[in-house]
Amino acid sequence: MNAGRPLRLLLAGFGNVGQTLAEILVTRNAYPALADLELEVVAITTGSRGTVADERGIDLAAALEAIRSGGRFSEDHPGRVEVDTLQAASMLDYDVLVELTPLTIAARGEPAIGHLAAALGRGRHAITCNKGPIAWAYRKLDALARRNGCTLLHEGTVMDGAPVFNLARHCLRGNRVVRLEGILNSTTNVVLGEMERGAALSDAVAQAQRLGIAEADPANDLDGWDAAVKIAALANVLMGAQLLPDAVQRTSIRDVTPDRLEAALAHGHRLKVVCEATREADAVRGSVTLREVPAGDVMATVEGTGSALRIVTDLMGTIVLVEEEPDVRTTAYAVISDLFELAGKV
Amino acid sequence: MNAGRPLRLLLAGFGNVGQTLAEILVTRNAYPALADLELEVVAITTGSRGTVADERGIDLAAALEAIRSGGRFSEDHPGRVEVDTLQAASMLDYDVLVELTPLTIAARGEPAIGHLAAALGRGRHAITCNKGPIAWAYRKLDALARRNGCTLLHEGTVMDGAPVFNLARHCLRGNRVVRLEGILNSTTNVVLGEMERGAALSDAVAQAQRLGIAEADPANDLDGWDAAVKIAALANVLMGAQLLPDAVQRTSIRDVTPDRLEAALAHGHRLKVVCEATREADAVRGSVTLREVPAGDVMATVEGTGSALRIVTDLMGTIVLVEEEPDVRTTAYAVISDLFELAGKV
Repeated sequence: MNAGRPLRLLLAGFGNVGQTLAEILVTRNAYPALADLELEVVAITTGSRGTVADERGIDLAAALEAIRSGGRFSEDHPGRVEVDTLQAASMLDYDVLVELTPLTIAARGEPAIGHLAAALGRGRHAITCNKGPIAWAYRKLDALARRNGCTLLHEGTVMDGAPVFNLARHCLRGNRVVRLEGILNSTTNVVLGEMERGAALSDAVAQAQRLGIAEADPANDLDGWDAAVKIAALANVLMGAQLLPDAVQRTSIRDVTPDRLEAALAHGHRLKVVCEATREADAVRGSVTLREVPAGDVMATVEGTGSALRIVTDLMGTIVLVEEEPDVRTTAYAVISDLFELAGKV
Repeated sequence: MNAGRPLRLLLAGFGNVGQTLAEILVTRNAYPALADLELEVVAITTGSRGTVADERGIDLAAALEAIRSGGRFSEDHPGRVEVDTLQAASMLDYDVLVELTPLTIAARGEPAIGHLAAALGRGRHAITCNKGPIAWAYRKLDALARRNGCTLLHEGTVMDGAPVFNLARHCLRGNRVVRLEGILNSTTNVVLGEMERGAALSDAVAQAQRLGIAEADPANDLDGWDAAVKIAALANVLMGAQLLPDAVQRTSIRDVTPDRLEAALAHGHRLKVVCEATREADAVRGSVTLREVPAGDVMATVEGTGSALRIVTDLMGTIVLVEEEPDVRTTAYAVISDLFELAGKV
């Protein structure tokens, strides 16, 4: 598979997804289908918890132990170095940058865009789980990758590990995608579900925060920003659009009441936050709207942190990809699926 | 894409799917994403409607006209030859055999298995829309293809053109599939839907026949054979099983009454024919059962000729692929998607 030598990874960020990825690699014997994929992590950078690098391969069990027990890589952790992520991406020797830093809407995908550009500009492959770069800079980054003979992959940016981008790359060839429609934001889906059972908005948001789904500041979810970034990323890759999240029409769920949800249920509908991208003349229009979905529609069955994407094409017709009850391994798997794509390319 | 020359196809069978494929190729300018795929049909064989062959490429518009107006290729149709499909597959010069003959359960996938073996044995690629060979002879045919440096593809055998096999090939790498569950037979799904609206079984079957969904003899659908062949094909490819349709536990819907459907609906369930394949110790067990599915399950939303497949994996979690309202172009697209896989391999 790897033509003789392991893929050497630089992990930029070591939060939930990075730690879960490390855990899967440490316990990889439990996953027989991973046997062919040879990997080695040669550097882990973090914002404020220290950075470690070792070209012979980092001891991942020790790295996990350090972060989980001490909260950081201590000064005497083996391989501890004083470089930030941009410096590491620009100077260290690795095959694949794995971008795992969190999205900041206000910064429009930076600094992750810069990290990816640093890797791709050196001809190193890059994988991002941060959706900002795909929403705000996909064309630019993809062109940079092509010029430098390397590849930018991003399966984990939308619908966790469900293979939406790989499906589009490999399985829809010959089609023109004419419309996308999805339920893509977990927080609003969980909140609306709680409110259907009678909770007030504030209590439902608090519940989503307790479950670790909503962030401390839930504004980006409630006001449709997270969903707008996702539908922009999908439109850019699947429809060849140049759609910025800023241009996506958004609706907030802040004014929804339990009464409204109950009224919808009474005539067999569920209120859902639906993302849409539609081809219009030569542009693609994006929207995030609050909509009554009939109970018989696949979209109405999306519960909790599940998600769904309807893909309408000119030739194959319409398919819907549904992800059910993802856990944190699901997003870590997205990175693994992208690594399978790259194996053999180095 | 095709490294300079078109893929040359032998169409074995020229029924609905073959004619629709020809129609798409004749009107290909309407599908911009097909621009890269260069094809040429060099032979069309039929059971009783004559065979035509021309190594410079058959005039597809004329072939369609001949079959649609005259019902057959007449003695003086350009390129008319007197060879059967097995002879054509064994002797003519072509790049890809496209097997479009109908399945005969009683013959356990023959004569299609023989056609495919003839092509693969000569190192020619093969695509089948006939699911019999994948259910009864997948290991043998796939091994034959590998030995001869060619490829056997079969996207159209289950769920029409929805990319279930291509998804498994490209997008699930690193996973072990532990369970499959699907609604895969149109006739029983349409019949149960009609019966939910009060129709008797016989009237519902007659309605499905009028719509061109059920065959004149609906036994293979009603008694679960079609579904058993499909779940065997899926298990063999996605789970590495050696499951024969004969070993799949089947249930007939002949004893279902409108009352039973109504009772299920009354407590929020729909009665559905569900195919399942489950990994047990070192074998895979298959079943086709009549089951009450809760209304909130994706499977309950599958209407008419739609279909759905739930794929449960060890690492990525669970996804469901849903196909909505397919038309005959959908299965023809399955052949096109397989041709994209082969383009560049000749």
